[in-house]
Amino acid sequence: MTKKIRIGIAGYGNLGRGVESAIYQNGDMELVGAFTRRNPEDVNLLNESVPVYALARVEDFKEEIDVLILCGGSKNDLPEQGPMLAKHFTTIDSFDTHADIPKYFDAVDQVAKPNEKTAIISVGWDPGLFSMNRLFGESVLADGTTYTFWGKGLSQGHSDAVRRVPGVKGAVQYTIPNPEAVEQVRSGSLPELTTREQHTRECYVVLEEGADAKEVEQAIVTMPNYFTNHDTTVHFISEEELKRDHAAMPHGGFVIRSGKTGDGNNQVIEYALKLESNPEFTASVLVAYARAAYRLNQNGDYGAKTVFDVAPGLLSPKSAATLRKELL
Amino acid sequence: MTKKIRIGIAGYGNLGRGVESAIYQNGDMELVGAFTRRNPEDVNLLNESVPVYALARVEDFKEEIDVLILCGGSKNDLPEQGPMLAKHFTTIDSFDTHADIPKYFDAVDQVAKPNEKTAIISVGWDPGLFSMNRLFGESVLADGTTYTFWGKGLSQGHSDAVRRVPGVKGAVQYTIPNPEAVEQVRSGSLPELTTREQHTRECYVVLEEGADAKEVEQAIVTMPNYFTNHDTTVHFISEEELKRDHAAMPHGGFVIRSGKTGDGNNQVIEYALKLESNPEFTASVLVAYARAAYRLNQNGDYGAKTVFDVAPGLLSPKSAATLRKELL
Repeated sequence: MTKKIRIGIAGYGNLGRGVESAIYQNGDMELVGAFTRRNPEDVNLLNESVPVYALARVEDFKEEIDVLILCGGSKNDLPEQGPMLAKHFTTIDSFDTHADIPKYFDAVDQVAKPNEKTAIISVGWDPGLFSMNRLFGESVLADGTTYTFWGKGLSQGHSDAVRRVPGVKGAVQYTIPNPEAVEQVRSGSLPELTTREQHTRECYVVLEEGADAKEVEQAIVTMPNYFTNHDTTVHFISEEELKRDHAAMPHGGFVIRSGKTGDGNNQVIEYALKLESNPEFTASVLVAYARAAYRLNQNGDYGAKTVFDVAPGLLSPKSAATLRKELL
Repeated sequence: MTKKIRIGIAGYGNLGRGVESAIYQNGDMELVGAFTRRNPEDVNLLNESVPVYALARVEDFKEEIDVLILCGGSKNDLPEQGPMLAKHFTTIDSFDTHADIPKYFDAVDQVAKPNEKTAIISVGWDPGLFSMNRLFGESVLADGTTYTFWGKGLSQGHSDAVRRVPGVKGAVQYTIPNPEAVEQVRSGSLPELTTREQHTRECYVVLEEGADAKEVEQAIVTMPNYFTNHDTTVHFISEEELKRDHAAMPHGGFVIRSGKTGDGNNQVIEYALKLESNPEFTASVLVAYARAAYRLNQNGDYGAKTVFDVAPGLLSPKSAATLRKELL
């Protein structure tokens, strides 16, 4: 029997739980443990026989873990954890602050390479599968335009960002495609649209006792990278409403490349996701790329990588010959 | 200025013309010439200043061509030309007889590797982009089902196959998705469907003078790999009708992966193509992969490859750092 790929999870929230669940769907992997900054005794895994450790102890498991999947947030956790953990482990993360990716890539690369580790950053669906479809689209249809629509869906990164605003007790953020813009794009008419025209953002916010609603709203709509480029509406709701009406985490969206070839023939490529659970889907992408990271590392391919650097065949448990026979 | 990638085209039909046209959309490439088995003087390129040579002379251009794009047919041309030309050139082809891919891969690999050439086989949209989406789908959603629908569209490979049947003067073949099957799949109900239930095939055939319609029909519907697994209808039409009603070459289709994560959340990935010109789109894919083949070869990565072996970033004229900044 082939040795299983031994996975560790760093950070056990919605994403970490999704990763645990995805690992159990992949027979060539096994979960060594989850690592948390909380008291390990307060963290319950889906499979109670899998141990939970303090994140501070993770280095003790250098020899027991093949790939560490980082499930912390992009804003506060990963900028510090990514480079720190890539020194000791081959890692996967879902760093999704698009504007800071080049800086983050360099920080991780500088640590991973000399330590002979492989770190695939910004894995998930956007950045991730959507990014790849933007790349395939513009590479194949050189004369054309790429459109990305998100939603309707709850955005984890944006919800986290709102929750960190002082005075916010709880919050969710939905991204909603503008239906008129979608129709224009699908028609092949190549409209010029700004991201702002393509989407709106809606936040449902529970205030801390005594917080100033106007100040909180202002802090949200002016937050750089997250909200400044979009029409954002903030609704204040009660804690009961938040729990009752906003517990599910659906998401989705589509990447459309519309281009012309030859004498002006229209060619349209559309990649669409309809997700009932965004964190579970992102987690499933992370787990598939964990397999690729393991193989790259085994092949001596060290340093920071992104989905652009990973040959698709490395994601599958099947051999290259089987893939050619069954899937090509 | 960076040196342009020098491309040659072997075989100048619809696909070859599409490749020529796609090369002119990519500023980092230049077309050295087209190579034909016909009399070169009878072949007119879109750009008349580009030379046409006899295919028999192609070896004389070993030093002038970086990548040779093979535009012959899968049934009769490529099985012979692929291994022959991969001895002297880094090549791209669109070999699309799915059942014979493993054999063809080995034949090309055996020649390319010792000669330090790189040959990416079976490039296009199916096999090609669709194959990759089947792979991504099952790698990310381990617990699920993949469905491929083709059409409505004219299939080049199947039309060629019909045209080679004795007694056939001209023909086109359309593949048509079964709308009920499509609806079932999109609902997420994971129906069990055979390829036959998902599609029908329609052939429009012009008979040679004196040919027996019954015999021709029988030869078509019993053709292995191409028609035996589908409900196939053969319509006999006049040459005028063929020219008037069946000159366009639209195609498309979709790959859908429907799967479950966590406690049973439905996740649906759909990849869809709507193409006004199938050969021009296939040609655009070949040209993007020609760039990747050139880079793989420059990096010393020799032998036969498929789209599964090619990191997406290699397809783009942009640098890895620019891709991370602009597209991730």
